[in-house]
Order: sequence, then C-alpha cells, then structure tokens
Amino acid sequence: MKLAQRIGHITQGGTDGWEIYYRTRDMIAAGERVLTLTIGEHDIGTDPAILKAMYDSASAGNTGYAFGPGNQDLRQEIAARVQARTGVPTGWDNVVITPGGQAALFAIHMALLDQGDRALYCDPYYATYPGTIRATGAEAAVVPTRSAEDFLPQEATIRALAQGAKTLLINTPNNPTGVIYPRATLEGIRRAVEAEDLWLISDEVYDTQIWEGEHLSPRALPGMTERTIVVGSMSKSHAMTGSRLGWIVAPTEVAEAVTTLTTNTTYGVPAFIQDAALFALRQGPGFEEKIAAPFRRRREIAMRALQGSNAIRVIPASGAMYVMLDIRATGLSGNDFANRLLDAERIAVMPGESFGAASAGHVRVALTIADDLFEEAIGRLAAFAERATG
Amino acid sequence: MKLAQRIGHITQGGTDGWEIYYRTRDMIAAGERVLTLTIGEHDIGTDPAILKAMYDSASAGNTGYAFGPGNQDLRQEIAARVQARTGVPTGWDNVVITPGGQAALFAIHMALLDQGDRALYCDPYYATYPGTIRATGAEAAVVPTRSAEDFLPQEATIRALAQGAKTLLINTPNNPTGVIYPRATLEGIRRAVEAEDLWLISDEVYDTQIWEGEHLSPRALPGMTERTIVVGSMSKSHAMTGSRLGWIVAPTEVAEAVTTLTTNTTYGVPAFIQDAALFALRQGPGFEEKIAAPFRRRREIAMRALQGSNAIRVIPASGAMYVMLDIRATGLSGNDFANRLLDAERIAVMPGESFGAASAGHVRVALTIADDLFEEAIGRLAAFAERATG
Repeated sequence: MKLAQRIGHITQGGTDGWEIYYRTRDMIAAGERVLTLTIGEHDIGTDPAILKAMYDSASAGNTGYAFGPGNQDLRQEIAARVQARTGVPTGWDNVVITPGGQAALFAIHMALLDQGDRALYCDPYYATYPGTIRATGAEAAVVPTRSAEDFLPQEATIRALAQGAKTLLINTPNNPTGVIYPRATLEGIRRAVEAEDLWLISDEVYDTQIWEGEHLSPRALPGMTERTIVVGSMSKSHAMTGSRLGWIVAPTEVAEAVTTLTTNTTYGVPAFIQDAALFALRQGPGFEEKIAAPFRRRREIAMRALQGSNAIRVIPASGAMYVMLDIRATGLSGNDFANRLLDAERIAVMPGESFGAASAGHVRVALTIADDLFEEAIGRLAAFAERATG
Repeated sequence: MKLAQRIGHITQGGTDGWEIYYRTRDMIAAGERVLTLTIGEHDIGTDPAILKAMYDSASAGNTGYAFGPGNQDLRQEIAARVQARTGVPTGWDNVVITPGGQAALFAIHMALLDQGDRALYCDPYYATYPGTIRATGAEAAVVPTRSAEDFLPQEATIRALAQGAKTLLINTPNNPTGVIYPRATLEGIRRAVEAEDLWLISDEVYDTQIWEGEHLSPRALPGMTERTIVVGSMSKSHAMTGSRLGWIVAPTEVAEAVTTLTTNTTYGVPAFIQDAALFALRQGPGFEEKIAAPFRRRREIAMRALQGSNAIRVIPASGAMYVMLDIRATGLSGNDFANRLLDAERIAVMPGESFGAASAGHVRVALTIADDLFEEAIGRLAAFAERATG
C-alpha cells in the first residue's frame, strides 16, 4: 500500500516559505508583539450585511444540494460584471462557480491538462501555483522574469519555453509583486500563446485593487476570448476569503468541461454562500472601493517611507495588496533579511525566495495591518535595511 | 487547443440515468403534479438552530481563511465520535475536513491513485463513483454483485479482480440498494484486500440511518485500521446537504497526504460552516434520530405496501434512505418501468440501470416525500407493477 506518487510530486523542490510564518505564529503564541505582514488577508472580516444576506438565504430554505455549475442568477451577475468591465460578450454559460479561487485554478488545470502535459507559470508566483499544476499530473514549467524588468514576463522567454506546452498561467494584478501587467506585456503574451497555440489562464482575483494605470484582462484582446480562461473570486474584492467562492470565465465548451469535472470533485457550492456573493456583487463599485481603500493608503505610506532609500528599491506597486522590495543592496538573501528582521524588530515579511528563484534577494510586504502600525513597521524595516547596508 | 482527455474519460460509457430526473423537472415546470422519489435529499431543510450557529460564528468574525485540514475542535469532535462508535483509537490528526463527502471521495482517490492505476468499486454504485475515479486518471474497474445476493460484494469476485488494483471503494449502508453490509461480507472484503494489499475506502455517509441490524465500520476489523479510509459527511445525518461539509478518517500519513492535496485544490472549508457542523454534532444522537425517523417510517410503509406483491421483490432494506425494487417479473427494464410509471402515474423513480449493470431490471425509490404522499405513491407503484405483470 503506497500513497500516489502525485503527493510527493506536488511538493517537490519547494523551498519552505512558511518558516517565517510558523516562527511568527510561535512568537505570537508566546505572547510577543509581532507586526505581521506575511499573509494576503484583510485586517477586517466580511461585512455584516453580507453575512446577514447569507443567513437570510439559508433561513429561507436554500440549504439543499446546489446546482453543479452554480446558481443561474449568480452566474448571470458575474457574466454581466465581466462584460461591463471588459466589453467582451459574456453569458451565464461562460461562468462556473467553484468553492474558492484556488478550486477554480485547480479545476481549470484539470480540465485542460493530462498526465505529462507541460503547463507554464511565471516566477515569482503565488505559493500554490506549482503544486496545483503538479496535482493534475502535469509538468509545471517556470517562466522566469527579472526584477529589473519589474518581473514582467517577456514574449521571447515565453516562446522559448512554450513548444509542447499546453497552458500558460499569469496573474495580474500580481501576487507577490504588486505589478499590473501593462498592455505591451499582455500583447507579448498574446502573440506568444497564439504562436504556440496555448490556452491562457489569467488569474485576476486582485482586479479591484488598482492603484496606478488600469487593469486589462487579456480575454479582451483581439482573438483571445476563445483561448483565455479568467479565474475570479470574492475573496480579495469583497473581503470574503473564508467564504470560499470563486469562478472561472471561459468558452462554453471549457465551462461545460469544468462542470463535468466539478460534479465529481466538489458537487456544488453552498447556495446560501452563492446568495451572499450575489448580494455583495450588487453593492456595486462603491463597496469594492471601500474594501480596497486601506491597501491604497498603505501602499502610499510604503512608497513615501521608502523613497530615497539606499538599501531598498521598491518594485513599482500598481495594484494588489503587497509591495515587493529589492533588498539586494543589503547583501542579504530574502530569507536572511526576513529572519533577521523578525529577530531584531519583530516584524514579519515573506522572503522573496518563497515565491520562486526570480525574487531571491527580495521580500514581500503585505499591506494588511492598520495604517499606524503599518507606518511604524515600514519605517523600522527601512531603518533596519539601512543599518544592514551599513 | 484541446481539452484534457480526462474530461471525455470521466463520462465514458455512462448510461444517462438523469433522463427521468430531467423529464420530471420539465413536467413540474409545466405545472403537473409529480410524486418525485428520485433524489436522495431530505424533505426538510437544515435545522434553524444549526443555521443560527453558523451565523453566530460568522458574525463573531470567523470569516477569514480557514486552516487547511480543518479546525482542530471539529477534527477532534469527529475523531471522538468515530472512536465512540467503533472503538478504534482515533485522533484529530486522523481527520481531514473537506467541502462535502464528494470532495472527500475525490481527495482520497487522488491521494492514493496515479495515472493508470486500477481502482475497484462495486456495482450498483452511487452515480459519481466511476467519474470520481476516472477524474484522477485511474482506471475504474467494477466489482459486479447480484440481486439474488442482495447486491453484497463477494470475496471471490473481489479477489479475482484485485490483482494489480490499488484501492477498493465500498459503501455501507448502501446507496442505491439500502442494504447494510453484514459482518460476514465485511470479513470477506477484509480477507480480499489484505490478500491483494489494497487500500479500502469505506463510504459511510448513511451510518446514522440504520433500520435493521447494525452498521459495522470495516476500519474496526482486526488489522484494518491502517489500510482503511472512511468517508463521512454531515449531509445525510444532519440534513446539511447544501453546506458541503465532509471528511476522511485515515492513517495519519494518509491524512497528511490529503492535506497536501487539498491545500492545492480547495484550500479549506468555511470556518463558520465548520462551527455549524461542530454545533450539530454536539446535539447528540437524539437529533440524528429525529433526522432519520421519517425514512424509518417510510421504509416501513414501503415494506408493508409491497408485502406479498407478485410483481415486485424488495431488496432487504436495512438502512439508508432508499428501497431497491426488483421489477423483473413485469418483463420491463428499469428504464422502461420508470418511464412508463412517470407517464401513467406521474411518479418518478430512478431506473436501476442508472446505477450500473447489476441493478438492471430494478428501480430505486427514495424515501423523501411526506408519509401520506409516499404511501400514495408506493401503493400506486405497486398496482402499476401488478398490472404490468398482467
């Protein structure tokens, strides 16, 4: 009796980015004050009105098996939202509801990849990307990017790696870098995936957190609607991380394939959570801006505090709830910087190495504590870096 | 650009058991009265006290990312429950919470099977079993059973098919047959899986619906704890089908493997739903008996109504929310019987063929409408069968 080889495969070659996370947890459990800038989660809970909508739906009797691909009204609402934001005609049958964005990422890779297929993703990356691909049995192949190019994937790099690959996964606005892919980058990606006939999987869960410029969905580029699958979620836009509600937007044949799959993997999402999501989406952009506003403020605090630093270069953070700091001038690795910062200052940030090789020598700062504490943390981090640079 | 071959693989060779379901839906939409005995879902919703517990938990702030394998208090509660019911020492680290029993079934097959491995399941079967196995890339191989043997899998049959297989999936109390596997059957299964070194996956989601005899978990048989994975769920025991909360109970190394997997596939279950499940489990056996009681009554109504029928043999229904009827004396297939019954009497039952070849010439009756309506339906079904037998 053995486990599936896939289990070992999922975790292969992973650097343990969670060391800082666990050390922080232990310190806090021991009663220490640690300013924690590690996890991408709001410092507020889900809005009481959304929770009330969930309870009202459940109390009204929506507690039975939900329809596999999602409630039609929610699918329609998401389709209309996507169409309004991108101009791309989108119907309810392009949308499948999943129990969270992570489940959407997994489902779409399962629907497109067979054992041994090659799937591309960009380095640096969100922690679960390679494991998600490997869980399907596919080969996870990395598209490296460079700090000096703001970690934007380059057309030539993709094309050099794309032969024989089947999918490319991108994320804009990006975690961990905070960068929004500009049109030129997306045009390069478009040319590359068209030339090599890849599916494009576009993770856009941060699409309401835009600080500079604009978010462009590659599904809206000419010719791309039929080869792009967008992953969305209520987690970041509506502070509903724990509700586990996500979706894919895809060509209908892909949406049907995902439905076939999810019938055998998750069997629907609680109808009362779908109704809560519908209520939340109908609150409109004002509500979403209210959720995003703290990150907008703290990102500005960070930019101000780090302006003119000799030790730190800030990767231009145009969106999402993070800033990525190039700390190579200190001579330290991201891991060493993060561990020493935790030891000396009781400030926890994520080492760039935990997001891949491309962001070695960097640290990711989550904009997820109250403004005054954040200002204190970023100031002390800056001073620490100056001292380390010496 | 193509879909993964796995998608076609999932649905291969499936008879469309859903024809009756869709015809019924259309009739009801057209305003007709149809007595619907197709789906295994309670005719009550989730108890208001459970929904209140969910809302209280969410309102108290449990709306953020939940811990991957589940909340420790819920894992501990389930472990203690399993230990109390089976006598097998069970700790929280043997339990992983999943978004529903279906997700548990999928996760454990993913954790144990690689591409091309062979996985056994018994015919007749719950509708998703073969698709769940095929979604992992494994080969789904059927263990046939016989109506004359109450659809109980036989040791010799399993052994003949087990060479080179890696897992065997069983379900007791059984859907669709309503049969509880007796100790002798489970001992035969134990000998077979030990001899062929298989993992045993035991779906026990109906373990609170016991009408005659007793439910025995094969994990409690000598030597079986280390090779058995039990799948459980709140759906049937607590009328929480829409809440999507299930679990596996497994050796710790298997539980850890499932945790690695679920981190990359579903990323936790809403904490407020976990808290609702904890509340529900702590209501104790009286609550569970209240949920089960209607099925107990209706099963007795069915047994009485069909006693002495020349047209119908009732498979001894000792548990779960179904009775399986052998209607071969009518000369009709299960499909024909179900379609004609729907046409003539506006009563909807599931054809045995939709659960596999072994239950051809049978129909499954769900015990899921109010007693008086159920009594009417079963009486008319019996009369219809007598007329058809002629």
